[in-house]
Amino acid sequence: MFSEQDHHYMAMAIALAKKGRFTTTPNPNVGCVIVKDNQIVGQGYHQRAGDAHAEVHALRQAADKAVGATAYVTLEPCSHHGRTPPCAEGLINAGVCRVVAAMVDPNPKVAGRGLALLQQAGVETAYGLLENEARALNRGFLKRMEQGLPYVTCKLAASLDGKTALKNGQSKWITGPLARRDVQQFRAQSCAILTGADTVIVDDAKLNVRENECAIELPQGHALRQPVRVIIDSQNRLTPELAVFQIDAPIIIFRTHLDNNHQWPHFVEQIELKAEHGKVSCRAALKHLASCGINSVWLESGATLAGVFAQQQLIDEYVVYLAPKLIGHQGKSLFHLPEITMMDDAAQLEFTDVTRIGDDIRITAKTC
Amino acid sequence: MFSEQDHHYMAMAIALAKKGRFTTTPNPNVGCVIVKDNQIVGQGYHQRAGDAHAEVHALRQAADKAVGATAYVTLEPCSHHGRTPPCAEGLINAGVCRVVAAMVDPNPKVAGRGLALLQQAGVETAYGLLENEARALNRGFLKRMEQGLPYVTCKLAASLDGKTALKNGQSKWITGPLARRDVQQFRAQSCAILTGADTVIVDDAKLNVRENECAIELPQGHALRQPVRVIIDSQNRLTPELAVFQIDAPIIIFRTHLDNNHQWPHFVEQIELKAEHGKVSCRAALKHLASCGINSVWLESGATLAGVFAQQQLIDEYVVYLAPKLIGHQGKSLFHLPEITMMDDAAQLEFTDVTRIGDDIRITAKTC
Repeated sequence: MFSEQDHHYMAMAIALAKKGRFTTTPNPNVGCVIVKDNQIVGQGYHQRAGDAHAEVHALRQAADKAVGATAYVTLEPCSHHGRTPPCAEGLINAGVCRVVAAMVDPNPKVAGRGLALLQQAGVETAYGLLENEARALNRGFLKRMEQGLPYVTCKLAASLDGKTALKNGQSKWITGPLARRDVQQFRAQSCAILTGADTVIVDDAKLNVRENECAIELPQGHALRQPVRVIIDSQNRLTPELAVFQIDAPIIIFRTHLDNNHQWPHFVEQIELKAEHGKVSCRAALKHLASCGINSVWLESGATLAGVFAQQQLIDEYVVYLAPKLIGHQGKSLFHLPEITMMDDAAQLEFTDVTRIGDDIRITAKTC
Repeated sequence: MFSEQDHHYMAMAIALAKKGRFTTTPNPNVGCVIVKDNQIVGQGYHQRAGDAHAEVHALRQAADKAVGATAYVTLEPCSHHGRTPPCAEGLINAGVCRVVAAMVDPNPKVAGRGLALLQQAGVETAYGLLENEARALNRGFLKRMEQGLPYVTCKLAASLDGKTALKNGQSKWITGPLARRDVQQFRAQSCAILTGADTVIVDDAKLNVRENECAIELPQGHALRQPVRVIIDSQNRLTPELAVFQIDAPIIIFRTHLDNNHQWPHFVEQIELKAEHGKVSCRAALKHLASCGINSVWLESGATLAGVFAQQQLIDEYVVYLAPKLIGHQGKSLFHLPEITMMDDAAQLEFTDVTRIGDDIRITAKTC
């Protein structure tokens, strides 16, 4: 069904799409390559929500050469009038004769209508080429569209013997500078960084992306986007003096009761959620975030919150950095979980990657 | 100093030497390649203590062709009359004109005398070719010769969150069948397997090599060698009914007082060592093992004994298997260690290898 050339150009479109990974939220990453007589006549990728879609960039570049060409798009062209006109129409008007999409857009506003529109206009369509790669590119967007929840990655850093901190709470620094820089890259690609009040109070964490600590390749003309910082504070323990509140960028605090005792900065939004056993429901918090367009959440918390997320099966992926250190049994564990009495009851994961990062090791696992 | 050909043939000799890794203890692994006119005329490796040395096998094969040939040996040829006549003499008598050794033999009975003997007889000698590889081959033998202690590898298996067992002690099976098979390979290459009475009692561990669980390539005509099983039993808690005592192969039990209350099988040797804070001194136990010709110890114990070994800096290498599971904070930790209050005081290791073994990950680290 797909030729070697089709594979080649779709792989290029996927590589292009990735360039938008730091900036397109809440939109998906999309790349487009337009090919005529085995020559690339146009290419582009989506850079930021509200800006032109990938197809628009590519068509602009192709101009007249789009007539009779094939367009490779990593996601089905849109069919609806959003902040930009529908791309399916654009492709038709430009005279493209074949459109290959890596996957159908799960967005209920599209969901096959883009391809249908093209077919009705006599454009040959096909989809499913490098679909797994295309899905991986937008796993957050897809999860939000398909399940109404963001894709949650739980990041932890520990010694080889699985301790995230000393008994006295000291955790700076378990891992080395390259691992910490790697974390900044992940943070920068996330829509939100989520943690508990404990971490903010004990570590005085800022939860921001520090440009000077990492090399983030942004599309030209785009500034670094700070992920939304999200804090679960069931007991209203946060105070405005904390470091996290000294950085002017959006913060959402989930609470069971709003805190009106303090003067909060303008960029702080308090969200009241019904209490569940006296605490904020993590699932409800994630649902709220998804409803705000948050595709992906980077969870960087202590063992208690990580344990709740793990137990409630809210984590899609684990990224664990292990440092070549031994701390011993008195150190802090990675996850607080209820006791299990049978090995078969242990949460089962699947390792998807192991990479050495400087002196440390980064292990990636997903839930089965 | 060394040609490309020299490198090539020494690499071959090292590959040959490795074939003896399951059988030569307490002797080192040695390989020998004899080359004349860029043709291999003889090759061999040491198979078992008491049997012919690598050079003897290679010279036998080379016969007359050894005259004027170069011999590549991974360890300096011996100069002393042991269970076999000195190899340096054998090489001289065979008419070899050049001997290249990867390294000088640290055995005080040799220590340069083999090369000196060759030089005195007019044989050209050189050493230091692929020395690191040759040292890695015999790190146990070298440590015993140089420090009077065996090379200790601490093996542990844990969940991703660093728990070796459930709160109730259940540890079967954290890792998968391929990881357990991998452990059998390591056990089979070790001179001794060491553990504490606890592990023997709680897990009813047999501490043997199970041929049916692994594929061990033995030299032709050699049977599987069972490593010496070593148990530290400071409180005389072991009893002869335990599974470990049902297998007829050598066991050494270290105690602070001999146990004369039980009838022990003939293959069990009790060694009394002076108590240190009421317990067997691990260092003294290792010194005793080295004095018995034990080059390498495979430590497979619980967190307490592993912690003592780690703290006393008796461990050379860590082999940690991580399974894609989460057990939670109530599980058992890898190492019991005294509290530290500064991150810089954590024992510092260096990762040397990370490999995926089936569904699990094997991490190798050495002490800095």
